[in-house]
Amino acid sequence: MKNLFAERVLRNDTSDLNEIFKNSRNPENISFAGGFPDKQLFPTQALKAAYARAIDQAGPAIFQYASTQGLLSLRQKIADRMATHAGVQATAANVMLTQGGQQAIDLVAKLFLNRSDAMVVEGPTYMGALAAFDTYEPTYYEVPVDKHGMDTDRLRTTLAAHPEIKLIYTVPDFHNPTGTTMSAKRRQTLVALANQYNVMILEDSPYRDLRYSGKAVPAIKHYDTEGRVIFISSFSKILSPALRTGWIVAATPVMDALVGLKSAIDVQSPNVTLAAIDQYLATNDIDAHIATINQQYRVKRDAMLRALDRYFPSTVNYTRPAGGFFIWVTLPAGIDAQALLRDVVLPQAHVAYVPASCQFASRQVKNGFRLNYTSLSTADITSGVQRLGRILQTQLAVAPQPKLSFQF
Amino acid sequence: MKNLFAERVLRNDTSDLNEIFKNSRNPENISFAGGFPDKQLFPTQALKAAYARAIDQAGPAIFQYASTQGLLSLRQKIADRMATHAGVQATAANVMLTQGGQQAIDLVAKLFLNRSDAMVVEGPTYMGALAAFDTYEPTYYEVPVDKHGMDTDRLRTTLAAHPEIKLIYTVPDFHNPTGTTMSAKRRQTLVALANQYNVMILEDSPYRDLRYSGKAVPAIKHYDTEGRVIFISSFSKILSPALRTGWIVAATPVMDALVGLKSAIDVQSPNVTLAAIDQYLATNDIDAHIATINQQYRVKRDAMLRALDRYFPSTVNYTRPAGGFFIWVTLPAGIDAQALLRDVVLPQAHVAYVPASCQFASRQVKNGFRLNYTSLSTADITSGVQRLGRILQTQLAVAPQPKLSFQF
Repeated sequence: MKNLFAERVLRNDTSDLNEIFKNSRNPENISFAGGFPDKQLFPTQALKAAYARAIDQAGPAIFQYASTQGLLSLRQKIADRMATHAGVQATAANVMLTQGGQQAIDLVAKLFLNRSDAMVVEGPTYMGALAAFDTYEPTYYEVPVDKHGMDTDRLRTTLAAHPEIKLIYTVPDFHNPTGTTMSAKRRQTLVALANQYNVMILEDSPYRDLRYSGKAVPAIKHYDTEGRVIFISSFSKILSPALRTGWIVAATPVMDALVGLKSAIDVQSPNVTLAAIDQYLATNDIDAHIATINQQYRVKRDAMLRALDRYFPSTVNYTRPAGGFFIWVTLPAGIDAQALLRDVVLPQAHVAYVPASCQFASRQVKNGFRLNYTSLSTADITSGVQRLGRILQTQLAVAPQPKLSFQF
Repeated sequence: MKNLFAERVLRNDTSDLNEIFKNSRNPENISFAGGFPDKQLFPTQALKAAYARAIDQAGPAIFQYASTQGLLSLRQKIADRMATHAGVQATAANVMLTQGGQQAIDLVAKLFLNRSDAMVVEGPTYMGALAAFDTYEPTYYEVPVDKHGMDTDRLRTTLAAHPEIKLIYTVPDFHNPTGTTMSAKRRQTLVALANQYNVMILEDSPYRDLRYSGKAVPAIKHYDTEGRVIFISSFSKILSPALRTGWIVAATPVMDALVGLKSAIDVQSPNVTLAAIDQYLATNDIDAHIATINQQYRVKRDAMLRALDRYFPSTVNYTRPAGGFFIWVTLPAGIDAQALLRDVVLPQAHVAYVPASCQFASRQVKNGFRLNYTSLSTADITSGVQRLGRILQTQLAVAPQPKLSFQF
């Protein structure tokens, strides 16, 4: 029946990478590829109690159809938190609950993107966002990320050259996949450019609260003067991804349209889940929980950086993130990280990572990969990086001279 | 920012109807407009216990990322149920769990519909499906429904005239909004026509198990010989809509593509919810639960039919469904049910229904409306129908001679 599939499906073939990961299911493997939280840190008993309490308090009504925008008291708590934790003034009416941050991305893409419409993504960027955008078949313009976040000088040039651009997608806090955070100055420049060129900004910030060192920067939406910034985040990294609960903060005309779209996509999010999260927040200190998570993840990040310092060849570059889930590794130019993964790293070192190519909209940059440290024990982090470092030492010894085509 | 919205959003303005329903929130009102189950029939305590047991059994792992296709043991139970209850042979690999039946519709639309691609919908049809399809901007061909379901003679003519048609959407069991069920003969004809013209069939069957009289007909997918039928259903009407859990049964190439699309839309459904439903099914007899529901809904349907027989003018026609949620009322030609609702029925009778226009892709048929009976008490059903009947008696007395433009 493939002859009947829509073009959006036929043109986005990711079977190569799927094939690699399908072949990677081996208990000997250490995978740095996922973006998983550490399951030992889930507040399992507190969430169990929250489900029971939510059902007891609401009774049968909790199982009925409810609002598309989502449970009001949870939206109110999120609005309050946006003020205290991100410097964003919002009311519950400006908050919608979604099926994780992923659905928030899909909804915003669906709202703005006709086929071929122009948008800016960071290079590299979150591959799940690319997967969502791809189904709306936009024209991508890639703006590089450096250690202060998206390069706003390059953004200015791009916007000037392509005034048809409608949307800018950015992960400003502990960027996926590089781990860098956009400076406050660039955030202000970004908003000024969006105002100047009549562009929307999609600020995707699921890692914002996971800071292990340094001081928080206000959200891009904090600097928003014209309702151009759509802020999205989720409970996936701070509570549990299986709850599939994220949120969008947006100005009223955008919010109204997003609610209409969500209604046509899945009517609403599961009310029982929303009520359970609401109960969890009412009776637990989520900031104390996040502080515990951050303490653990800091140790893991430090273990990975120590292992990289120790075992990786000096011709390889990597980021030193102040928070989040990921470290980005840049290989010498000419090295194809995906081919290396398939041919050498997986079969010989039994280690997995996410190669660069699928994290650039252009699919052209190949000499890098993303490493996750949150889901592994420090022992596995050290031993996996050691195994990977040994392979890289061998491979890069026979590779061309180091000349970094993408670096920090 | 509306100047930046995509055309799919700008062209689908449903604000008229939204406005009517916004003004209908009055505690005096009796609403036949929703498609809600009776919340008193939700197995609240059993579901509460199922959540607790699911979390206890799986431990913290239940809160981690899981499969996009959904929990295997639940998919297995659904596959088994498809065989016993719908005559459909399927394995767990052919089942995917979705955010209610609505997401299943959205996914299938996204898989097959480029902008302007041709598809068939019934006239009338489920308005939520139209809302989902609308966002892919298809070209609709409307095939009427009569008391044996979609008119397959008209379908044949339509397919012959428009060989570019890719997809047929049908609600064969206790059709939304008319309540009729497609005959076994027409189901076989439908599959034969789809084979002949290389068309996919989307069989949407959320009401299938809610039969109050008569004998079940096999699913359309039972007659599928070429993997052309995609069957979708949900737990919304038989367990709870707030669980937002539906499923798709499809042949492997279609399933693979749908899993890829879901991954880009929301990664996966909430694993806690899926595990709770799995636990509910493992330790409760859902067929006994459905029998209880059917007993209650039969009483409500009968109460509505009795009230319609007694209070509605003889120039008005209505269906007598053997199951499901809805009765369809046909007014004399020339009567605009939406204007009547806004100008007379809501303000004077304080009763709401869903007018015809939004349930036809063409938006051209106006002389009818949908009534729901499952969510109301028999007292409210009787009194609401009486109030509505009184208004119709008055209005139709001054209306043009009865000449039914759409009828059963």
